[in-house]
Amino acid sequence: MFDLIAFDADDTLWHNETLFQATAREFASLLAGHHPAEWIQERLFATEMKNLRHFGYGIKGFTLSMIETAIELTEGRVTGAEIKTILGWSHSMLQAPIALLDGVRETIAALAGEHRLMLLTKGDLFDQESKLARSGLGAHFSAVEIVSEKNARTYEVIMTRHGLTPARFLMVGNSLRSDILPVLDAGGAAVHIPYATTWVHERVAEDAMAGRTFATLENIRELPAWLARTATASRV
Amino acid sequence: MFDLIAFDADDTLWHNETLFQATAREFASLLAGHHPAEWIQERLFATEMKNLRHFGYGIKGFTLSMIETAIELTEGRVTGAEIKTILGWSHSMLQAPIALLDGVRETIAALAGEHRLMLLTKGDLFDQESKLARSGLGAHFSAVEIVSEKNARTYEVIMTRHGLTPARFLMVGNSLRSDILPVLDAGGAAVHIPYATTWVHERVAEDAMAGRTFATLENIRELPAWLARTATASRV
Repeated sequence: MFDLIAFDADDTLWHNETLFQATAREFASLLAGHHPAEWIQERLFATEMKNLRHFGYGIKGFTLSMIETAIELTEGRVTGAEIKTILGWSHSMLQAPIALLDGVRETIAALAGEHRLMLLTKGDLFDQESKLARSGLGAHFSAVEIVSEKNARTYEVIMTRHGLTPARFLMVGNSLRSDILPVLDAGGAAVHIPYATTWVHERVAEDAMAGRTFATLENIRELPAWLARTATASRV
Repeated sequence: MFDLIAFDADDTLWHNETLFQATAREFASLLAGHHPAEWIQERLFATEMKNLRHFGYGIKGFTLSMIETAIELTEGRVTGAEIKTILGWSHSMLQAPIALLDGVRETIAALAGEHRLMLLTKGDLFDQESKLARSGLGAHFSAVEIVSEKNARTYEVIMTRHGLTPARFLMVGNSLRSDILPVLDAGGAAVHIPYATTWVHERVAEDAMAGRTFATLENIRELPAWLARTATASRV
Protein backbone atom coordinates (compact mmCIF):
# COMPACT_ATOMS: atom_id res chain seq x y z
CA MET A 1 0.00 0.00 0.00
CA PHE A 2 2.80 2.45 0.94
CA ASP A 3 6.28 2.43 -0.61
CA LEU A 4 7.65 4.55 2.19
CA ILE A 5 6.55 5.74 5.61
CA ALA A 6 8.01 9.06 6.74
CA PHE A 7 8.06 10.08 10.39
CA ASP A 8 8.31 13.50 11.89
CA ALA A 9 10.79 13.56 14.78
CA ASP A 10 10.13 16.24 17.43
CA ASP A 11 7.05 15.33 19.48
CA THR A 12 6.35 12.36 17.20
CA LEU A 13 9.31 10.13 18.04
CA TRP A 14 10.79 12.00 21.00
CA HIS A 15 9.74 14.71 23.43
CA ASN A 16 10.72 18.21 22.37
CA GLU A 17 8.10 20.90 23.00
CA THR A 18 8.00 20.07 26.71
CA LEU A 19 11.72 20.92 26.87
CA PHE A 20 11.12 24.33 25.30
CA GLN A 21 8.12 24.98 27.55
CA ALA A 22 10.06 24.02 30.68
CA THR A 23 12.84 26.42 29.65
CA ALA A 24 10.32 29.18 28.91
CA ARG A 25 8.96 28.73 32.46
CA GLU A 26 12.47 28.99 33.92
CA PHE A 27 12.95 32.13 31.84
CA ALA A 28 9.76 33.61 33.31
CA SER A 29 11.04 32.80 36.82
CA LEU A 30 14.39 34.46 36.08
CA LEU A 31 12.64 37.72 35.21
CA ALA A 32 9.87 37.38 37.82
CA GLY A 33 11.11 40.54 39.58
CA HIS A 34 10.32 42.59 36.48
CA HIS A 35 7.05 41.29 35.02
CA PRO A 36 4.27 38.70 35.52
CA ALA A 37 5.10 35.26 34.10
CA GLU A 38 2.33 35.35 31.52
CA TRP A 39 3.50 38.65 30.03
CA ILE A 40 7.12 37.43 29.90
CA GLN A 41 6.12 34.28 28.00
CA GLU A 42 3.95 36.33 25.66
CA ARG A 43 6.83 38.68 24.87
CA LEU A 44 9.22 35.74 24.40
CA PHE A 45 6.83 34.14 21.91
CA ALA A 46 6.45 37.46 20.04
CA THR A 47 10.26 37.78 19.80
CA GLU A 48 10.56 34.18 18.58
CA MET A 49 7.99 34.82 15.85
CA LYS A 50 9.70 38.05 14.79
CA ASN A 51 13.04 36.25 14.57
CA LEU A 52 11.79 33.05 12.94
CA ARG A 53 12.41 34.25 9.39
CA HIS A 54 16.02 35.10 10.27
CA PHE A 55 16.86 32.29 12.68
CA GLY A 56 14.70 29.37 11.57
CA TYR A 57 13.67 26.75 14.14
CA GLY A 58 15.80 25.37 16.91
CA ILE A 59 17.49 25.86 20.24
CA LYS A 60 20.11 28.41 19.13
CA GLY A 61 17.49 30.78 17.73
CA PHE A 62 15.30 30.24 20.81
CA THR A 63 18.24 31.15 23.05
CA LEU A 64 19.01 34.32 21.10
CA SER A 65 15.31 35.24 21.38
CA MET A 66 15.39 34.67 25.16
CA ILE A 67 18.41 36.97 25.48
CA GLU A 68 16.77 39.66 23.32
CA THR A 69 13.55 39.43 25.35
CA ALA A 70 15.46 39.63 28.64
CA ILE A 71 17.18 42.86 27.52
CA GLU A 72 13.89 44.33 26.34
CA LEU A 73 11.86 43.39 29.45
CA THR A 74 14.52 44.69 31.87
CA GLU A 75 15.18 47.81 29.78
CA GLY A 76 18.78 46.73 29.47
CA ARG A 77 19.30 46.09 33.20
CA VAL A 78 19.64 42.31 32.80
CA THR A 79 22.96 41.24 34.34
CA GLY A 80 25.80 39.27 32.84
CA ALA A 81 25.08 36.53 35.37
CA GLU A 82 21.46 36.29 34.18
CA ILE A 83 22.51 36.08 30.53
CA LYS A 84 24.99 33.40 31.54
CA THR A 85 22.12 31.46 33.12
CA ILE A 86 20.21 31.65 29.83
CA LEU A 87 23.28 30.46 27.88
CA GLY A 88 23.54 27.57 30.32
CA TRP A 89 20.00 26.51 29.45
CA SER A 90 20.92 26.37 25.76
CA HIS A 91 23.73 23.94 26.55
CA SER A 92 21.42 21.85 28.76
CA MET A 93 18.78 21.75 26.03
CA LEU A 94 21.32 20.82 23.34
CA GLN A 95 22.63 17.97 25.48
CA ALA A 96 19.35 16.85 27.02
CA PRO A 97 18.87 13.09 26.84
CA ILE A 98 16.52 12.06 24.03
CA ALA A 99 13.31 10.83 25.65
CA LEU A 100 11.46 8.65 23.18
CA LEU A 101 7.67 8.73 23.29
CA ASP A 102 5.86 5.68 24.61
CA GLY A 103 5.87 2.81 22.11
CA VAL A 104 8.32 4.41 19.67
CA ARG A 105 11.30 2.10 20.09
CA GLU A 106 9.38 -1.16 19.58
CA THR A 107 7.10 0.15 16.85
CA ILE A 108 9.83 1.72 14.72
CA ALA A 109 11.98 -1.41 15.06
CA ALA A 110 9.04 -3.62 14.03
CA LEU A 111 8.00 -1.42 11.11
CA ALA A 112 11.58 -1.18 9.80
CA GLY A 113 11.48 -4.93 9.13
CA GLU A 114 8.53 -4.55 6.78
CA HIS A 115 8.70 -1.03 5.30
CA ARG A 116 11.13 1.60 4.04
CA LEU A 117 11.17 4.28 6.72
CA MET A 118 12.28 7.92 6.42
CA LEU A 119 12.93 10.47 9.11
CA LEU A 120 11.57 13.77 7.81
CA THR A 121 11.95 16.67 10.18
CA LYS A 122 12.30 20.39 10.09
CA GLY A 123 14.63 22.40 12.24
CA ASP A 124 18.27 22.98 12.87
CA LEU A 125 20.37 20.53 10.81
CA PHE A 126 23.12 20.06 13.36
CA ASP A 127 20.71 19.72 16.27
CA GLN A 128 18.43 17.22 14.51
CA GLU A 129 21.34 15.04 13.37
CA SER A 130 22.65 15.04 16.91
CA LYS A 131 19.24 14.06 18.30
CA LEU A 132 18.84 11.23 15.78
CA ALA A 133 22.29 9.91 16.69
CA ARG A 134 21.49 10.06 20.41
CA SER A 135 18.03 8.48 19.91
CA GLY A 136 19.50 5.16 18.86
CA LEU A 137 16.88 4.93 16.09
CA GLY A 138 19.17 5.88 13.21
CA ALA A 139 19.66 2.37 11.80
CA HIS A 140 15.91 1.93 11.23
CA PHE A 141 15.66 4.76 8.71
CA SER A 142 16.75 4.20 5.13
CA ALA A 143 16.64 7.95 4.51
CA VAL A 144 16.87 11.09 6.60
CA GLU A 145 15.65 14.45 5.35
CA ILE A 146 16.08 17.57 7.45
CA VAL A 147 14.36 20.59 5.94
CA SER A 148 14.03 24.21 6.97
CA GLU A 149 10.25 24.31 6.47
CA LYS A 150 7.55 21.72 5.74
CA ASN A 151 5.11 22.88 3.08
CA ALA A 152 3.51 21.09 0.11
CA ARG A 153 6.49 22.04 -2.09
CA THR A 154 8.92 20.47 0.40
CA TYR A 155 7.02 17.18 0.28
CA GLU A 156 6.83 17.25 -3.54
CA VAL A 157 10.60 17.78 -3.80
CA ILE A 158 11.28 14.90 -1.41
CA MET A 159 8.86 12.54 -3.18
CA THR A 160 10.54 13.36 -6.50
CA ARG A 161 14.05 12.97 -5.11
CA HIS A 162 13.23 9.50 -3.78
CA GLY A 163 11.17 8.47 -6.83
CA LEU A 164 7.98 8.12 -4.79
CA THR A 165 4.40 8.17 -6.05
CA PRO A 166 2.45 10.61 -3.84
CA ALA A 167 -0.43 8.17 -3.29
CA ARG A 168 2.04 5.61 -1.95
CA PHE A 169 3.73 8.02 0.48
CA LEU A 170 2.59 8.06 4.11
CA MET A 171 3.57 10.77 6.58
CA VAL A 172 3.19 10.26 10.33
CA GLY A 173 3.44 13.24 12.65
CA ASN A 174 2.04 15.31 15.46
CA SER A 175 1.64 18.66 13.70
CA LEU A 176 -1.46 19.27 11.58
CA ARG A 177 0.24 22.32 10.13
CA SER A 178 3.57 20.74 9.15
CA ASP A 179 2.98 16.98 8.94
CA ILE A 180 -0.62 16.55 7.79
CA LEU A 181 -2.02 19.46 5.74
CA PRO A 182 0.92 19.95 3.35
CA VAL A 183 1.30 16.18 2.73
CA LEU A 184 -2.37 15.92 1.79
CA ASP A 185 -1.90 18.96 -0.48
CA ALA A 186 1.00 17.14 -2.15
CA GLY A 187 -1.17 14.06 -2.79
CA GLY A 188 0.18 11.88 0.00
CA ALA A 189 -1.51 10.14 2.91
CA ALA A 190 -1.14 11.15 6.54
CA VAL A 191 -1.55 9.78 10.04
CA HIS A 192 -1.86 12.30 12.84
CA ILE A 193 -0.65 11.32 16.31
CA PRO A 194 -1.32 14.37 18.50
CA TYR A 195 1.24 15.27 21.15
CA ALA A 196 0.21 16.34 24.65
CA THR A 197 0.99 19.96 23.87
CA THR A 198 1.38 21.91 20.64
CA TRP A 199 3.63 24.92 20.09
CA VAL A 200 1.38 27.92 19.39
CA HIS A 201 3.16 28.44 16.06
CA GLU A 202 2.12 24.95 14.89
CA ARG A 203 -1.57 25.31 15.74
CA VAL A 204 -4.14 25.55 12.96
CA ALA A 205 -7.67 26.91 12.98
CA GLU A 206 -10.24 24.21 13.75
CA ASP A 207 -11.90 24.56 10.36
CA ALA A 208 -8.58 24.21 8.47
CA MET A 209 -9.04 20.44 8.43
CA ALA A 210 -12.58 20.52 6.98
CA GLY A 211 -12.96 18.15 4.05
CA ARG A 212 -9.55 16.54 4.64
CA THR A 213 -9.12 12.79 4.96
CA PHE A 214 -6.48 11.46 7.30
CA ALA A 215 -6.28 9.09 10.23
CA THR A 216 -5.74 10.04 13.84
CA LEU A 217 -4.15 7.62 16.28
CA GLU A 218 -3.60 8.04 19.98
CA ASN A 219 -0.27 6.23 20.17
CA ILE A 220 2.31 5.08 17.62
CA ARG A 221 1.70 1.50 18.84
CA GLU A 222 -1.58 1.56 16.92
CA LEU A 223 0.19 2.21 13.62
CA PRO A 224 1.01 -1.39 12.53
CA ALA A 225 -2.64 -2.44 13.01
CA TRP A 226 -3.80 0.64 11.12
CA LEU A 227 -1.43 -0.20 8.26
CA ALA A 228 -2.75 -3.78 8.17
CA ARG A 229 -6.38 -2.56 8.09
CA THR A 230 -5.56 -0.05 5.36
CA ALA A 231 -3.81 -2.68 3.26
CA THR A 232 -6.79 -5.04 3.62
CA ALA A 233 -9.25 -2.28 2.73
CA SER A 234 -7.25 -1.32 -0.36
CA ARG A 235 -7.29 -4.93 -1.62
CA VAL A 236 -11.10 -5.20 -1.41
CA MET B 1 34.97 13.44 -17.82
CA PHE B 2 32.85 14.46 -14.80
CA ASP B 3 29.20 13.51 -14.34
CA LEU B 4 28.74 16.20 -11.73
CA ILE B 5 30.61 19.23 -10.46
CA ALA B 6 29.96 20.16 -6.85
CA PHE B 7 30.74 23.61 -5.49
CA ASP B 8 31.33 24.69 -1.95
CA ALA B 9 29.46 27.94 -1.18
CA ASP B 10 31.04 30.08 1.57
CA ASP B 11 34.26 31.71 0.31
CA THR B 12 34.03 29.73 -2.94
CA LEU B 13 30.94 31.31 -4.51
CA TRP B 14 30.36 34.22 -2.12
CA HIS B 15 32.27 36.08 0.57
CA ASN B 16 31.71 34.77 4.08
CA GLU B 17 34.80 34.64 6.28
CA THR B 18 35.44 38.37 5.80
CA LEU B 19 32.00 39.01 7.36
CA PHE B 20 32.85 36.93 10.42
CA GLN B 21 36.29 38.56 10.72
CA ALA B 22 34.82 42.06 10.45
CA THR B 23 32.33 41.22 13.21
CA ALA B 24 35.08 39.73 15.37
CA ARG B 25 36.98 43.03 15.03
CA GLU B 26 33.88 44.99 16.07
CA PHE B 27 33.57 42.62 19.02
CA ALA B 28 37.17 43.37 20.03
CA SER B 29 36.43 47.11 19.81
CA LEU B 30 33.31 46.73 21.97
CA LEU B 31 35.39 45.18 24.76
CA ALA B 32 38.50 47.34 24.17
CA GLY B 33 38.14 48.86 27.66
CA HIS B 34 38.68 45.44 29.23
CA HIS B 35 41.38 43.65 27.22
CA PRO B 36 43.72 43.98 24.21
CA ALA B 37 42.09 43.18 20.86
CA GLU B 38 44.32 40.19 20.19
CA TRP B 39 43.46 38.52 23.48
CA ILE B 40 39.73 39.12 22.96
CA GLN B 41 39.83 37.52 19.50
CA GLU B 42 41.85 34.61 20.87
CA ARG B 43 39.29 34.00 23.64
CA LEU B 44 36.41 34.29 21.16
CA PHE B 45 38.01 31.68 18.92
CA ALA B 46 38.57 29.36 21.90
CA THR B 47 34.90 29.71 22.89
CA GLU B 48 33.79 29.01 19.32
CA MET B 49 35.87 25.85 19.20
CA LYS B 50 34.56 24.69 22.57
CA ASN B 51 30.97 25.24 21.40
CA LEU B 52 31.37 23.83 17.89
CA ARG B 53 30.32 20.31 18.81
CA HIS B 54 27.12 21.65 20.42
CA PHE B 55 26.28 24.51 18.05
CA GLY B 56 27.68 23.45 14.68
CA TYR B 57 28.73 26.13 12.18
CA GLY B 58 26.95 29.36 11.49
CA ILE B 59 26.01 32.84 12.61
CA LYS B 60 23.69 31.85 15.47
CA GLY B 61 26.35 29.75 17.18
CA PHE B 62 28.96 32.46 16.55
CA THR B 63 26.68 35.04 18.19
CA LEU B 64 26.09 32.85 21.24
CA SER B 65 29.86 32.39 21.49
CA MET B 66 30.41 36.17 21.33
CA ILE B 67 27.90 36.69 24.16
CA GLU B 68 29.52 33.97 26.26
CA THR B 69 32.98 35.45 25.65
CA ALA B 70 31.76 38.96 26.52
CA ILE B 71 30.42 37.74 29.88
CA GLU B 72 33.63 35.86 30.59
CA LEU B 73 36.01 38.68 29.62
CA THR B 74 34.10 41.33 31.61
CA GLU B 75 33.61 39.00 34.57
CA GLY B 76 29.87 39.42 34.15
CA ARG B 77 29.96 43.23 33.98
CA VAL B 78 28.93 43.38 30.30
CA THR B 79 25.82 45.56 30.02
CA GLY B 80 22.45 44.80 28.46
CA ALA B 81 23.18 47.51 25.89
CA GLU B 82 26.43 45.80 24.90
CA ILE B 83 24.70 42.42 24.52
CA LYS B 84 22.05 44.15 22.45
CA THR B 85 24.80 45.47 20.18
CA ILE B 86 26.08 41.91 19.70
CA LEU B 87 22.57 40.67 18.91
CA GLY B 88 22.26 43.48 16.37
CA TRP B 89 25.38 42.16 14.60
CA SER B 90 23.78 38.73 14.27
CA HIS B 91 20.81 40.27 12.49
CA SER B 92 23.10 42.33 10.23
CA MET B 93 25.14 39.24 9.38
CA LEU B 94 22.05 37.13 8.68
CA GLN B 95 20.68 39.78 6.35
CA ALA B 96 23.97 40.89 4.78
CA PRO B 97 23.78 41.12 0.99
CA ILE B 98 25.37 38.13 -0.71
CA ALA B 99 28.57 39.34 -2.36
CA LEU B 100 29.55 36.87 -5.07
CA LEU B 101 33.25 36.36 -5.70
CA ASP B 102 34.73 37.73 -8.89
CA GLY B 103 33.79 35.65 -11.93
CA VAL B 104 31.25 33.45 -10.15
CA ARG B 105 28.04 34.64 -11.79
CA GLU B 106 29.25 34.23 -15.39
CA THR B 107 31.21 31.02 -14.78
CA ILE B 108 28.44 29.18 -12.94
CA ALA B 109 25.89 30.24 -15.58
CA ALA B 110 28.18 29.04 -18.39
CA LEU B 111 29.03 25.73 -16.70
CA ALA B 112 25.36 25.02 -15.92
CA GLY B 113 24.71 24.81 -19.67
CA GLU B 114 27.20 21.97 -20.05
CA HIS B 115 27.36 20.13 -16.72
CA ARG B 116 25.22 18.97 -13.81
CA LEU B 117 26.10 21.25 -10.93
CA MET B 118 25.58 20.69 -7.21
CA LEU B 119 25.86 23.11 -4.33
CA LEU B 120 27.49 21.21 -1.48
CA THR B 121 28.02 23.23 1.65
CA LYS B 122 28.29 22.75 5.35
CA GLY B 123 26.74 25.00 7.92
CA ASP B 124 23.43 26.13 9.25
CA LEU B 125 20.62 24.74 7.05
CA PHE B 126 18.34 27.74 7.33
CA ASP B 127 21.13 30.23 6.81
CA GLN B 128 22.64 28.46 3.79
CA GLU B 129 19.25 28.09 2.07
CA SER B 130 18.61 31.76 2.64
CA LYS B 131 22.01 32.69 1.19
CA LEU B 132 21.48 30.51 -1.88
CA ALA B 133 18.07 32.13 -2.47
CA ARG B 134 19.55 35.61 -2.11
CA SER B 135 22.56 34.76 -4.32
CA GLY B 136 20.39 34.39 -7.43
CA LEU B 137 22.39 31.27 -8.38
CA GLY B 138 19.78 28.71 -7.30
CA ALA B 139 18.49 27.85 -10.78
CA HIS B 140 21.93 26.73 -11.96
CA PHE B 141 22.20 23.88 -9.46
CA SER B 142 20.39 20.61 -10.14
CA ALA B 143 21.00 19.52 -6.54
CA VAL B 144 21.69 21.22 -3.23
CA GLU B 145 23.19 19.38 -0.28
CA ILE B 146 23.67 21.12 3.04
CA VAL B 147 25.56 18.99 5.52
CA SER B 148 26.66 19.48 9.10
CA GLU B 149 30.25 18.37 8.45
CA LYS B 150 32.31 17.53 5.37
CA ASN B 151 34.37 14.40 5.81
CA ALA B 152 35.07 11.46 3.48
CA ARG B 153 31.97 9.66 4.75
CA THR B 154 29.79 12.69 3.90
CA TYR B 155 31.09 12.67 0.32
CA GLU B 156 30.57 8.90 0.00
CA VAL B 157 26.97 9.18 1.18
CA ILE B 158 26.27 11.99 -1.29
CA MET B 159 27.90 10.15 -4.20
CA THR B 160 25.80 7.07 -3.41
CA ARG B 161 22.59 9.05 -3.02
CA HIS B 162 23.07 10.65 -6.43
CA GLY B 163 24.32 7.46 -8.12
CA LEU B 164 27.73 8.98 -8.84
CA THR B 165 30.98 7.16 -9.58
CA PRO B 166 33.68 8.71 -7.37
CA ALA B 167 36.15 9.09 -10.22
CA ARG B 168 33.57 11.12 -12.14
CA PHE B 169 32.79 13.47 -9.24
CA LEU B 170 34.56 16.83 -9.07
CA MET B 171 34.51 19.08 -6.00
CA VAL B 172 35.49 22.74 -6.22
CA GLY B 173 36.14 24.71 -3.06
CA ASN B 174 38.37 26.96 -1.00
CA SER B 175 38.99 24.74 2.02
CA LEU B 176 41.70 22.09 1.86
CA ARG B 177 40.29 20.58 5.03
CA SER B 178 36.63 20.36 3.98
CA ASP B 179 36.54 20.52 0.19
CA ILE B 180 39.75 18.87 -1.01
CA LEU B 181 41.22 16.27 1.39
CA PRO B 182 38.00 14.34 2.19
CA VAL B 183 36.91 14.27 -1.49
CA LEU B 184 40.25 12.78 -2.50
CA ASP B 185 39.88 10.26 0.33
CA ALA B 186 36.46 9.32 -1.09
CA GLY B 187 37.96 8.72 -4.55
CA GLY B 188 36.78 11.94 -6.17
CA ALA B 189 38.66 14.74 -7.92
CA ALA B 190 39.14 18.23 -6.51
CA VAL B 191 39.95 21.75 -7.60
CA HIS B 192 41.17 24.13 -4.92
CA ILE B 193 40.48 27.85 -5.34
CA PRO B 194 42.02 29.50 -2.27
CA TYR B 195 40.18 32.41 -0.67
CA ALA B 196 41.97 35.53 0.52
CA THR B 197 41.66 34.43 4.14
CA THR B 198 41.05 31.09 5.81
CA TRP B 199 39.27 30.56 9.13
CA VAL B 200 41.81 29.12 11.57
CA HIS B 201 39.56 26.09 12.09
CA GLU B 202 39.77 25.22 8.38
CA ARG B 203 43.55 25.40 8.13
CA VAL B 204 45.60 22.24 7.62
CA ALA B 205 49.25 21.52 8.26
CA GLU B 206 51.40 22.18 5.21
CA ASP B 207 52.47 18.56 4.94
CA ALA B 208 48.87 17.30 5.06
CA MET B 209 48.67 17.63 1.28
CA ALA B 210 51.85 15.65 0.56
CA GLY B 211 51.28 13.01 -2.10
CA ARG B 212 47.83 14.33 -2.98
CA THR B 213 46.84 15.18 -6.53
CA PHE B 214 44.49 18.06 -7.11
CA ALA B 215 44.43 21.26 -9.13
CA THR B 216 44.75 24.76 -7.76
CA LEU B 217 43.25 27.70 -9.61
CA GLU B 218 43.44 31.37 -8.76
CA ASN B 219 39.97 32.32 -9.90
CA ILE B 220 36.81 30.39 -10.77
CA ARG B 221 37.00 31.92 -14.26
CA GLU B 222 39.86 29.50 -15.01
CA LEU B 223 37.65 26.46 -14.35
CA PRO B 224 36.06 25.98 -17.83
CA ALA B 225 39.50 25.99 -19.49
CA TRP B 226 40.81 23.56 -16.85
CA LEU B 227 37.84 21.25 -17.51
CA ALA B 228 38.52 21.41 -21.26
CA ARG B 229 42.22 20.60 -20.73
CA THR B 230 41.35 17.73 -18.38
CA ALA B 231 38.84 16.29 -20.86
CA THR B 232 41.41 16.46 -23.66
CA ALA B 233 44.11 14.86 -21.52
CA SER B 234 41.78 12.02 -20.51
CA ARG B 235 40.98 11.26 -24.15
CA VAL B 236 44.65 10.96 -25.13
